[in-house]
Amino acid sequence: MKDKISVALIQNSYEESVEKNIDKNISKIKEAQKMGADFVSLSELHNSLYFCQREDTEFFKLAEEIPGKSTEIYGRLSKELNITLLVSLFEKRARGIFHNTALILDRGEIAGLYRKMHIPDDPGFYEKFYFTPGDIGFEPIETSLGTIGVLICWDQWFPEAARIMCLKGAELLVYPTAIGWAPSDPTEEKSRQLEAWINIQRSHAIANGVFVLSVNRTGNEKINNDEGIDFWGNSFICGPQGEIVKKANSEETITFAEIDKERIDKVRQIWPFFRDRRIDEYEDILNRFF
Amino acid sequence: MKDKISVALIQNSYEESVEKNIDKNISKIKEAQKMGADFVSLSELHNSLYFCQREDTEFFKLAEEIPGKSTEIYGRLSKELNITLLVSLFEKRARGIFHNTALILDRGEIAGLYRKMHIPDDPGFYEKFYFTPGDIGFEPIETSLGTIGVLICWDQWFPEAARIMCLKGAELLVYPTAIGWAPSDPTEEKSRQLEAWINIQRSHAIANGVFVLSVNRTGNEKINNDEGIDFWGNSFICGPQGEIVKKANSEETITFAEIDKERIDKVRQIWPFFRDRRIDEYEDILNRFF
Repeated sequence: MKDKISVALIQNSYEESVEKNIDKNISKIKEAQKMGADFVSLSELHNSLYFCQREDTEFFKLAEEIPGKSTEIYGRLSKELNITLLVSLFEKRARGIFHNTALILDRGEIAGLYRKMHIPDDPGFYEKFYFTPGDIGFEPIETSLGTIGVLICWDQWFPEAARIMCLKGAELLVYPTAIGWAPSDPTEEKSRQLEAWINIQRSHAIANGVFVLSVNRTGNEKINNDEGIDFWGNSFICGPQGEIVKKANSEETITFAEIDKERIDKVRQIWPFFRDRRIDEYEDILNRFF
Repeated sequence: MKDKISVALIQNSYEESVEKNIDKNISKIKEAQKMGADFVSLSELHNSLYFCQREDTEFFKLAEEIPGKSTEIYGRLSKELNITLLVSLFEKRARGIFHNTALILDRGEIAGLYRKMHIPDDPGFYEKFYFTPGDIGFEPIETSLGTIGVLICWDQWFPEAARIMCLKGAELLVYPTAIGWAPSDPTEEKSRQLEAWINIQRSHAIANGVFVLSVNRTGNEKINNDEGIDFWGNSFICGPQGEIVKKANSEETITFAEIDKERIDKVRQIWPFFRDRRIDEYEDILNRFF
């Protein structure tokens, strides 16, 4: 397994037509592969608009089984392009059980999947209506490029999730995401939210000495008649000291970088946080509150 | 208990004379109180040079009991000035048992103490030689100003420590610190280290919806004949979205701000991370590695 790998994050805007979104994703994935990417990640729920802006049983028709149509389309593509590809699907697991699921397709094979563990619910992000919380825990996925810890959007606010993934060997954490502002939010609030979002993800790189890849969608989407959400883009790649390697703004773009996993060894030698964790004194973290 | 409190961080440089350091601290604490501070924090081990640059049994003579001389001096001062004061001492607990301990003196009374839990050891920071790891866990301290989670320097790299303090009710996390660069480190490495140090502490504010106060020393100190350490200052106060409220550079200074604890309520309502923690799935965090 090689230490140097090239990674690419697809930051798209999306529209109502699932077919057009899939075509757009395919075309961008091909472009990323031409740039030299070994690993390509799409953003959260990239086949559709972000339907969780409203609670509506109509949207359950967007869900699909895994494996199913999308697994087949993207799986074939990952084989054709000889890449490792992260896709994010609205999974129908059973009648009435749906998940927000990410899947790694490794050169045509399903390497593994992750079902979103932390489910948000706030105005415009009514995910608790749609998604059953994941029940397979924080298990990184072995791929031909190394061990990848997949976490999804809201998971990014929880240091426990990143930590467990890394204790289990993740070398890269990848966060497919759909996050944005209410357009009417004050400028200072927007800036605090964006900064906090970048900061918390960089902190997982720092605390664990790993690479973090975060990939968001962009553009305004209206599902109700109101102002909708301005997805803020800003996909980024950071190294094991939290240093930004490459970052997008809010445009449609592919964020590309070559990363060297050997840097994980070097950083963990100068910052040996795993050596000093007080595992004898962390049990209280299993409580809701005191 | 009032929600609005004024806090001040004393960022000093230090010299060999303990007496002169204490005099300097007293004078700066008085200055902070004149500015209107209710809570004043000194930095880590503020009575001496940072002796952990070298392993030398000679330095154990700097240790003292708690309560002892420093407790008395600073305790009297906190009473006289009617303030809540954080001091950081090299504690002699018993023959051959020493701790890196922080103490909150609340208007003349010992409100509580914290013994550093995570002990670093890397070139120039040979703390494992001097300090027995703390055994009283992550217990916040009740004061007349509210509940304060005291953590010390190296603790700042461990999200578990911040999390447990906040689950136990901490409204403010305070990190007395002694951190700096080797003067010969490349500029880019210095910048990565400083940014990471700020980033990881802001992340604890974000993840837990609390205020974070970090107070560092400044200036070059040589204990060996080599280049010594450039302590980088940069003490700061940030709010529960991780937003910087006030930050120093590397000069000797008092970082002062009024903070409103009601903001904790507001931020936790829009970012209800405590609501969504997957405490049913965090047990793996108690492992060293997998």
